[in-house]
Amino acid sequence: MIVAGDQQLLKQINRMALVRQLCSQPGMSRAALAETVGLTKSTISLLVRELLDEGWLIEEEPGITGALGRRATPLQLDGSRLALLGADLGISGARVVATNLLGEVLAERELPYADPQDSTACLALTAGGLVQLADDAALAEHSVLGIGIGVHGVVDDASGMLHIAPHLGWRNVDVAAQLRDSFVGSALDGLPLFIQNEANVAALAELEFSGQSGTDPLIYLSIGYGVGAGIIVNGRLLTGLSGFAGEVGHTILQQNGPACSCGRRGCADALIGLQAMMDDAYGTHHTSTPEQLERLFMQAEAGDTAATQAVTAAGRNLGVLLNNLWAAFDPMAIVIGGGALRLGERFVAPGRQVLDDYANAARLPAPAIRTPHFGPNSIAIGGAAMARHYLMRPALTTLPA
Amino acid sequence: MIVAGDQQLLKQINRMALVRQLCSQPGMSRAALAETVGLTKSTISLLVRELLDEGWLIEEEPGITGALGRRATPLQLDGSRLALLGADLGISGARVVATNLLGEVLAERELPYADPQDSTACLALTAGGLVQLADDAALAEHSVLGIGIGVHGVVDDASGMLHIAPHLGWRNVDVAAQLRDSFVGSALDGLPLFIQNEANVAALAELEFSGQSGTDPLIYLSIGYGVGAGIIVNGRLLTGLSGFAGEVGHTILQQNGPACSCGRRGCADALIGLQAMMDDAYGTHHTSTPEQLERLFMQAEAGDTAATQAVTAAGRNLGVLLNNLWAAFDPMAIVIGGGALRLGERFVAPGRQVLDDYANAARLPAPAIRTPHFGPNSIAIGGAAMARHYLMRPALTTLPA
Ligand SMILES: [Zn+2]
Ligand SMILES: [Zn+2]
Repeated sequence: MIVAGDQQLLKQINRMALVRQLCSQPGMSRAALAETVGLTKSTISLLVRELLDEGWLIEEEPGITGALGRRATPLQLDGSRLALLGADLGISGARVVATNLLGEVLAERELPYADPQDSTACLALTAGGLVQLADDAALAEHSVLGIGIGVHGVVDDASGMLHIAPHLGWRNVDVAAQLRDSFVGSALDGLPLFIQNEANVAALAELEFSGQSGTDPLIYLSIGYGVGAGIIVNGRLLTGLSGFAGEVGHTILQQNGPACSCGRRGCADALIGLQAMMDDAYGTHHTSTPEQLERLFMQAEAGDTAATQAVTAAGRNLGVLLNNLWAAFDPMAIVIGGGALRLGERFVAPGRQVLDDYANAARLPAPAIRTPHFGPNSIAIGGAAMARHYLMRPALTTLPA
Repeated sequence: MIVAGDQQLLKQINRMALVRQLCSQPGMSRAALAETVGLTKSTISLLVRELLDEGWLIEEEPGITGALGRRATPLQLDGSRLALLGADLGISGARVVATNLLGEVLAERELPYADPQDSTACLALTAGGLVQLADDAALAEHSVLGIGIGVHGVVDDASGMLHIAPHLGWRNVDVAAQLRDSFVGSALDGLPLFIQNEANVAALAELEFSGQSGTDPLIYLSIGYGVGAGIIVNGRLLTGLSGFAGEVGHTILQQNGPACSCGRRGCADALIGLQAMMDDAYGTHHTSTPEQLERLFMQAEAGDTAATQAVTAAGRNLGVLLNNLWAAFDPMAIVIGGGALRLGERFVAPGRQVLDDYANAARLPAPAIRTPHFGPNSIAIGGAAMARHYLMRPALTTLPA
């Protein structure tokens, strides 16, 4: 009844089930794995041997366990032999990182753009930075498994085509093709390459590398100039019909509210993002400069009235958005990330207060709200996480959904 | 490498992949199935033989196909041997249906409650109705595979415990246990039983029985006294951390808007539901009667000013909710169902207009909005659909997510 192709598929599923189990519970023995994953001990032994040989797993010194003092060898992911690369293709520069399988950073680089409008040059710079990372002395003992890229715009994850990156001014840039071309002849030539928008990528960092199991559904709310979300449901990204799912910045929070860059009025984006705060404080109408952003951060810090009012108002609207995400997704946690985090509690506390007020009114416990595990590295490390995510789920897409 | 348990699992997955393929594309031959599903022809032949023997599939007269005129036998789901039961545990009565594997109704019954507050009596009545359906002459040739129940309240789908059904006044009712007890000694004794809230169940009817493939993500927006949604993502229900996902009736559409039954203000529920319309038209403040609901339907039909204004205002707020669901989920379609549909275009047209205005402003095509395929039977047929849904995905829950 089982044909060859099926066996390969099933073996791949079982291998990655073991790896994922050891991600969430490092130190399990073969016997414990057999019981938890539901495979025979002999199957486990064969799969573990392969994964040890390939660099996914490592054995620790055996401890004494059980009533009869039998030795059980703890297994865990091997941080010393395989590497993942990630890039944050940011607004003013790129950040590239190399991590091991556990998401621990082995090497990283900041790459400021000479001209952010010049997508070709920015992508060549990023590709060069990734190639250099692979050659870094810190990776001398590591083999690179794959590469993940987070972009601040709308991307077709299947083709790797960036439709629009509003704050870079890029339109219809074939990010995947340009990076692949730049990798030709390098150590990265032909490696698996994955591309997603920055909120999705940062959500995958939380899913894969935060060391927490059972965080599903998980929402990563990215608040920079604008607002977007990466949403994990059943261990996978919610991408939607055309890849636009998670565009929660364009849910309406205030009918006939301020004009949004998307053309609607009263979107979350136009009430919560840094651009909205600057428009509110300085009347900039979507035309603010990096200097005005610095001014906002400094004036909010200093307690300036207009800046403080704008930040507080945005924070209170954040609370409404948090309530709405809670009701729609019933998430295990909502992670708030992005550039607006620099405003700290001045911004987040009013949001949490509004959410708590709603929760109290409904007599329900509010969902967990927290900051990202990886701070300003969330997107670059998210790229590495995305590579591990898709490499660990190679066959599931071919299964019936 | 493959152990016995795995083989059973894989076989089950492959069997149900064939069934699902034939759900969306009836009439495929074994050869076409082999190509589409990616199994060898000999594996397909063995699996198809089993499914024919068990009553899942039937062979049609072979047609002539291909250049050489080879005979290919079309396969399809067999509507004549297996049955599914579904129940809509409604507000004033229950509705029970028996369908074949294709969702075609074989028999149905309306069961008005003597006392809607008496949950024990209502459940006994429903169980009795289901047992009688199984004994109906229309099912004489059918074997019942499973039973699905849709409840108008908050239910723990894992345990079958109903926490609260606000419009029935039921709290903490163990629906699954009471139904199972009532089935003892009947033809339904020990059969698989599944329970979900009514919006989730109706969403599964659209997924399983609408004859459309590729409707994912799909949102079934249920608008009765209140507002809720059943949401399908990657071919499965989005249930969330505690089973509360889809409670989009408690997303805020108007900050500091009218008081909602949940304790918050300005929820979609308090702006869009039939209760909200009556509160608006008649100042009923969450205490309306069935007579007032009839009055609303008749006055809206007759063009009465207060009723028309209330219905139009609710419809316009519906448009805001549709926009917000669109942005968050990027769905293939949003299905609008529930009792409010009796208001027809008076209610839905303003909603579609508001959604279209947002879509035009954003220069994006609005998502498809449509009515349910199964009208007032959506929930009862949804129960049958839920049974097929879970019976066809028996092993996937044991796979790594
Ligand atoms: Zn917008
Ligand atoms: Zn509410």
